[in-house]
Amino acid sequence: MSPLIALDWGTSSLRAALIDEQGQVLEERTFARGILTVTAGEFPLVLAQATAQWPSPPGALILLSGMVGSRQGWMEARYCPCPAGFADICAALTWVEPGRIAIVPGLSCEHDGVPDVMRGEETQVFGALQLLDIGHGAFVLPGTHSKWVRVAGSRIEEFRTFMTGELYALLRQHSILARTMPSADGELDTQAFELGVGQAQRSANLLHAAFSVRALSLFDRMPAAALPSYLSGLVIGEELRSQDLNAQAEPVIVIGSWALTERYTLALRMLGVRTFQADAQSTWRGLWAIARAQQRAG
Amino acid sequence: MSPLIALDWGTSSLRAALIDEQGQVLEERTFARGILTVTAGEFPLVLAQATAQWPSPPGALILLSGMVGSRQGWMEARYCPCPAGFADICAALTWVEPGRIAIVPGLSCEHDGVPDVMRGEETQVFGALQLLDIGHGAFVLPGTHSKWVRVAGSRIEEFRTFMTGELYALLRQHSILARTMPSADGELDTQAFELGVGQAQRSANLLHAAFSVRALSLFDRMPAAALPSYLSGLVIGEELRSQDLNAQAEPVIVIGSWALTERYTLALRMLGVRTFQADAQSTWRGLWAIARAQQRAG
Repeated sequence: MSPLIALDWGTSSLRAALIDEQGQVLEERTFARGILTVTAGEFPLVLAQATAQWPSPPGALILLSGMVGSRQGWMEARYCPCPAGFADICAALTWVEPGRIAIVPGLSCEHDGVPDVMRGEETQVFGALQLLDIGHGAFVLPGTHSKWVRVAGSRIEEFRTFMTGELYALLRQHSILARTMPSADGELDTQAFELGVGQAQRSANLLHAAFSVRALSLFDRMPAAALPSYLSGLVIGEELRSQDLNAQAEPVIVIGSWALTERYTLALRMLGVRTFQADAQSTWRGLWAIARAQQRAG
Repeated sequence: MSPLIALDWGTSSLRAALIDEQGQVLEERTFARGILTVTAGEFPLVLAQATAQWPSPPGALILLSGMVGSRQGWMEARYCPCPAGFADICAALTWVEPGRIAIVPGLSCEHDGVPDVMRGEETQVFGALQLLDIGHGAFVLPGTHSKWVRVAGSRIEEFRTFMTGELYALLRQHSILARTMPSADGELDTQAFELGVGQAQRSANLLHAAFSVRALSLFDRMPAAALPSYLSGLVIGEELRSQDLNAQAEPVIVIGSWALTERYTLALRMLGVRTFQADAQSTWRGLWAIARAQQRAG
């Protein structure tokens, strides 16, 4: 197997990695070239820039995952319906350039007749399963659109999306709550954050709980600098409120940036749930495993 | 009693009414001069413009309610703690000009150690109680920040705020959901609206339910033109989910604009709750009753 060029190409950023035959990441690069900054015909050029000087001999693969496979991306990739195993996504690659450049499919699932979708997180989860050498577990992938994923028998059985990061940003920057908060978030105020997590459980409705940011501020019951942490606790606490955490005997596996996994770990611990932080290399491991499966098959 | 000049001065608009001794509204005016458009020293001038040519003989009152009494308004008025009766707010006016111009206090209440506030809605509720000649009931005042108010023994016992209108606007205009929706709302699609109300009950979490707008659109399961109505059903349904509607034997009294009361009536009816639409003149009746009480006392 030749070296793999792997891209995690999301809405707001692009990460690229050069990975050797053994799965070692030789070099990693990050660019502010999320798909929203790329025009329809510009994807090949941005790919070339992001991977400049990396070897790509004949037979070498370039694998992409994330929103690059959405309708607004380079080419629309499929959604594999859940339950979906690793072999299912390997068999459903969308080829941008046959034999050389492929996009990993997303996943879809259905609850009460309403669909849900992911793109990119499936690759992270399968990568984490390989790194941890496990075949089941509850995963949370915090972010703009957090995903809660249940894996059993090495397959993604189901998942749910929560618009937690996006709602935080909207409330933080564009709502009436923004008026009483400092312009920068500052460091996490753990106490205020935990108050928010607790309030979300009691209130059980973000439409109501969010207004407490304003009321607490009007009565000087919380310093302005602590309000962003409190709001963060409210939205993350609201996300956790809907998880079946009592049934959760094993640790929840958290995959995400350090700043977010820290907050989710704090909040889950408050609710009596242990966490395990998966390796940040899950995406690269997932893409490398897909490439290896592809070259074995081919 | 002389004629009353009454102002309902909110965040984004200003309404003024000239009301005679019997409580009849002689003239009503609306201006796009909400407090956000008025600089600190400019309030007297805007008042003068809004009430130009209206008689204001010595002894005549000018009464203001709403966000004009907030920290960002003309002068900060008090909050009366709940439970609060009509006499309590009459006794707590904040005088901008003694004997002539006064601002009605807001109300505050507390749930689980967290405060909540209103400004303006107390006047509407007390006005509606007088118009309907009742002393108890469950009220909803839909809007940017919806209020659910419980009245017993002619006092406002407690209330809760839901940021429903604001969250709808944020999701509608600034979130990822905006990308798949038409720019204008169009007419209400009743079927899509009711689907949203139902989905909010099942999902029981707006962070999750909101994402279904995107997923339904990706799979062409709902026409783009129906998505705003569906989203409206989701947020209003989420607000209703937290109300104790099973205990609601009598109709819920809805006070608000026609467009909003129509939606709340539809959604409440779906959940088996009858509604009663209060007179749109509730604010004027409330302010007139306060003025009358003031002049009797004075």
